[in-house]
Amino acid sequence: MISDSCQLGVNEKKTPELVSRNSKPEGTIVNVNGIPIGGNEIVVMAGPCAVENFEQLIQTARKVKSGGAAILRGGAFKPRTSPYSFQGLGLEGLKMLEKARKETGLSIVTEVMDTREVESVSNYTDILQVGSRNMQNFPLLKEVGISNKPVLLKRGMMATLDEYLHAAEYILSQGNHAIILCERGIRTFESATRYTLDLNAIPFLKRQTHLPVLVDPSHGTGVRWLVPSMAKAAVAAGADGLLIEVHYRPDEALCDGSQSMFPEDFSTLVKDLHKMAEAVGRKIYTPKS
Amino acid sequence: MISDSCQLGVNEKKTPELVSRNSKPEGTIVNVNGIPIGGNEIVVMAGPCAVENFEQLIQTARKVKSGGAAILRGGAFKPRTSPYSFQGLGLEGLKMLEKARKETGLSIVTEVMDTREVESVSNYTDILQVGSRNMQNFPLLKEVGISNKPVLLKRGMMATLDEYLHAAEYILSQGNHAIILCERGIRTFESATRYTLDLNAIPFLKRQTHLPVLVDPSHGTGVRWLVPSMAKAAVAAGADGLLIEVHYRPDEALCDGSQSMFPEDFSTLVKDLHKMAEAVGRKIYTPKS
Amino acid sequence: MISDSCQLGVNEKKTPELVSRNSKPEGTIVNVNGIPIGGNEIVVMAGPCAVENFEQLIQTARKVKSGGAAILRGGAFKPRTSPYSFQGLGLEGLKMLEKARKETGLSIVTEVMDTREVESVSNYTDILQVGSRNMQNFPLLKEVGISNKPVLLKRGMMATLDEYLHAAEYILSQGNHAIILCERGIRTFESATRYTLDLNAIPFLKRQTHLPVLVDPSHGTGVRWLVPSMAKAAVAAGADGLLIEVHYRPDEALCDGSQSMFPEDFSTLVKDLHKMAEAVGRKIYTPKS
Amino acid sequence: MISDSCQLGVNEKKTPELVSRNSKPEGTIVNVNGIPIGGNEIVVMAGPCAVENFEQLIQTARKVKSGGAAILRGGAFKPRTSPYSFQGLGLEGLKMLEKARKETGLSIVTEVMDTREVESVSNYTDILQVGSRNMQNFPLLKEVGISNKPVLLKRGMMATLDEYLHAAEYILSQGNHAIILCERGIRTFESATRYTLDLNAIPFLKRQTHLPVLVDPSHGTGVRWLVPSMAKAAVAAGADGLLIEVHYRPDEALCDGSQSMFPEDFSTLVKDLHKMAEAVGRKIYTPKS
Repeated sequence: MISDSCQLGVNEKKTPELVSRNSKPEGTIVNVNGIPIGGNEIVVMAGPCAVENFEQLIQTARKVKSGGAAILRGGAFKPRTSPYSFQGLGLEGLKMLEKARKETGLSIVTEVMDTREVESVSNYTDILQVGSRNMQNFPLLKEVGISNKPVLLKRGMMATLDEYLHAAEYILSQGNHAIILCERGIRTFESATRYTLDLNAIPFLKRQTHLPVLVDPSHGTGVRWLVPSMAKAAVAAGADGLLIEVHYRPDEALCDGSQSMFPEDFSTLVKDLHKMAEAVGRKIYTPKS
Repeated sequence: MISDSCQLGVNEKKTPELVSRNSKPEGTIVNVNGIPIGGNEIVVMAGPCAVENFEQLIQTARKVKSGGAAILRGGAFKPRTSPYSFQGLGLEGLKMLEKARKETGLSIVTEVMDTREVESVSNYTDILQVGSRNMQNFPLLKEVGISNKPVLLKRGMMATLDEYLHAAEYILSQGNHAIILCERGIRTFESATRYTLDLNAIPFLKRQTHLPVLVDPSHGTGVRWLVPSMAKAAVAAGADGLLIEVHYRPDEALCDGSQSMFPEDFSTLVKDLHKMAEAVGRKIYTPKS
Repeated sequence: MISDSCQLGVNEKKTPELVSRNSKPEGTIVNVNGIPIGGNEIVVMAGPCAVENFEQLIQTARKVKSGGAAILRGGAFKPRTSPYSFQGLGLEGLKMLEKARKETGLSIVTEVMDTREVESVSNYTDILQVGSRNMQNFPLLKEVGISNKPVLLKRGMMATLDEYLHAAEYILSQGNHAIILCERGIRTFESATRYTLDLNAIPFLKRQTHLPVLVDPSHGTGVRWLVPSMAKAAVAAGADGLLIEVHYRPDEALCDGSQSMFPEDFSTLVKDLHKMAEAVGRKIYTPKS
Repeated sequence: MISDSCQLGVNEKKTPELVSRNSKPEGTIVNVNGIPIGGNEIVVMAGPCAVENFEQLIQTARKVKSGGAAILRGGAFKPRTSPYSFQGLGLEGLKMLEKARKETGLSIVTEVMDTREVESVSNYTDILQVGSRNMQNFPLLKEVGISNKPVLLKRGMMATLDEYLHAAEYILSQGNHAIILCERGIRTFESATRYTLDLNAIPFLKRQTHLPVLVDPSHGTGVRWLVPSMAKAAVAAGADGLLIEVHYRPDEALCDGSQSMFPEDFSTLVKDLHKMAEAVGRKIYTPKS
């Protein structure tokens, strides 16, 4: 398949060099406030789909911290299919994330959707997330490419791995080398699960690029009870970290409740992940408290 | 499949009402400088993938005009998989489009990719195109929703029709009701063609929504010699217009050369489309010259 | 993508030569009791999904004949997802088809699923249908390849066009050259329609192979009200014939009721198809009565 | 999506009851010559894609046995896309498998493609394999359903999990309860790998049905160097066994050479799988020698 957005013109090449493993055989370790992502230790990021209010955020944050997460996820700007769905708290949500960081010591990852907001979101977060729907939002890729924040670039739900590597190249080519990849499920004909988590992507990407590769089993399955198995499988397949949706009260969540884990199940899962990491000669990163 | 970007939260509904045929049973006719899109006449838009230089643009424009096109397409900002591919001429390209409009009288459709550029692109074009990769770029949808330009919203290459209608609802909900839909091929397992043109979408959309529906057989197939058959099929299926890539010298095109038609073949195709339109009780819109 | 069932071994080639347009540039016309399939005339086949009882069959047969069909379709052996769904009447159904042929003069196409039944089904039918799920049932392909009946080989819902041509080559390589291809929709992520009718396949196949190509808009959409538009689009795209589900009482059908046309709508459609055929310089085949 | 081959008719239900976990909450253990499949121990099956000659088979068999496999795989009847590709040795191949069993003590799994051959293949093998392309070959499912051999039913490369469970129900409903499921990769838009191994399927199936679930990472990736990671991931996700292609000289293989493991790498993998199994509280089944 010709995978370019436009087909290549005369005399065009499209070899993504900066992203290639060849350009950095030893691999990239992205440093987030001292947390090394891409090394021997596997980093767990967790938190709610969206920041709903401070109570929800801080309660969930404390629980994922005690459960073993090193980084707190939570959306302030939410890409929703319908304009009538909850769109996130915006700036208020960012401030709540900042406050939760102060109280818990957890680093923050949150999504930015608009080129005009990259700078302001950067003021509040430790990692800028570019979501699945924006993987080929090229102006946004260029904009985060000139920021000095690490970028978590999620794979498009419809993007080939070749396109994904090119998207990372956009960011790299602007000078930002602190990129974290994240497989989050692709769209297929299967309807029993929300997406098909493509774990083939993990060993494939680890060989093709020097960038760290995470897995998001929450979006990748869309079903809470499938998350633990797929989180373990991701570690077994070589993932450098996990991004897991946890909500202190999933049944009241404003979005993604049915795929969010209960805090106690998350804690159990992290214990299991320690065994899994050991079986592949690695460790789960444990924050110093 | 749960098709929301995030799954729905508690108490969320997502019925897209403004886009529904029920809200305007007679159908929407988008008026572009007197050209009615969505009525009984079928409108042909044609031109190069990208504006490369003025010579290429004006030569192609003259040929598509004499061939029967009413509107000139051409990209100044190009979404390309690789950062090293030709990215378009930007502002210079917009100025060339404006000049081509003056010389030929053709109206212009061109793509906008960045929320920050909606206003400036609006100054040069008659229709703002939101491309396939940006169908769920929600900030961009909102931004074109508050402009006063007609919007050509292309279907995401991996968007369900339900998601597509919701994307249009984003624009409508901001107050802009001049929206033109465009099926442009979806991504499937088939690799013999670049995309699979989903003509089922035409009668489906025409029943679900009051908005006009175009078809882009150039991207939908990716193969020049498949374009005429699929253009005719689109008209037979009920399309309100066509978006066709034509280049005065396809073999020298900076992008999409292999799917761009030769001007003489385009002229022949439009003649055939007249017969096809007649067979379904419609006409091809013919610009007054 | 490597499309072989097994990947190719050392020294293996897989060029399908007999199926190639090069081997017979003038095209194949399959003669079914004097009905030429693959020539300038477009042949309409219609009838119920399954033979349910003789009353249903003969009533429907008479109506599709008066509506303009040349060939009667109807399944005696039905491939059903569930073992508890109606599996077809088997031999009894074949006898009813034979009786319907005598009474109406319509030729018959019916499916064969089992290598052991090719001979017996051949005794009752004019065309052996190999269904979508059996497109790569290689023993069955070989078996119909040694029969002397024309074969209607439906495209697998998951088969690439390359695989499809190879499947036809299996039959050709056994000596049976009377093969009719039929696009019937492929499985994609889209769930608004049952399948995505891939009309790109029509001009693609017509160029690659000399075999006639039909379209089945009933299975290809799964929705009754989409069938007329897609039938017309198929003719516009170059199809050599159509396979349409019609039931004299769709709401009582034992299968596929929701995609089966009412007889009166079928008659209207065929009238429209005459105009469409004329627009592309062809005719709808009209049986001499 | 309406997933039936034909859509359901009036008054049809399609609940697959026998396959449901509810009908046997404790789970099924399929006993193959004393090897328990579906219990706490994970069973490794390995061998070449196709039986090519006795030397190749026995050499490979000895190596997979010493590497830790309990069951030998090898195809005598090969479903190949092209009629001109190597089709397998047929009866001669079956005899070689029988001889290899005698010499090594390994049990045998081999594919049957034709209803007419179920009985004869049963005479040589310990497990009848129904391949991906035949998952909805309903006459074949019924035929293996009345045999007294365990059946390894591979998931169709484009079958939903719902269809897969119904296919197993076909076999169960004929009285044969010794069924082993096997995820082997599904067809998606991704072309970097041959198929997308759908590991979501493992925990999903384990919850829905009492039948054991295997994974075939060789077909599921199509790339030799991806197999170890995905084999480990499969165990982490809860698979009851693995089906792995190994060839004593992969570069000379008549099919699937590029996805077949070297024997020494297979041995290393099995050692790693022991650690992985321990991490999930299970064991790799080790044949008594």
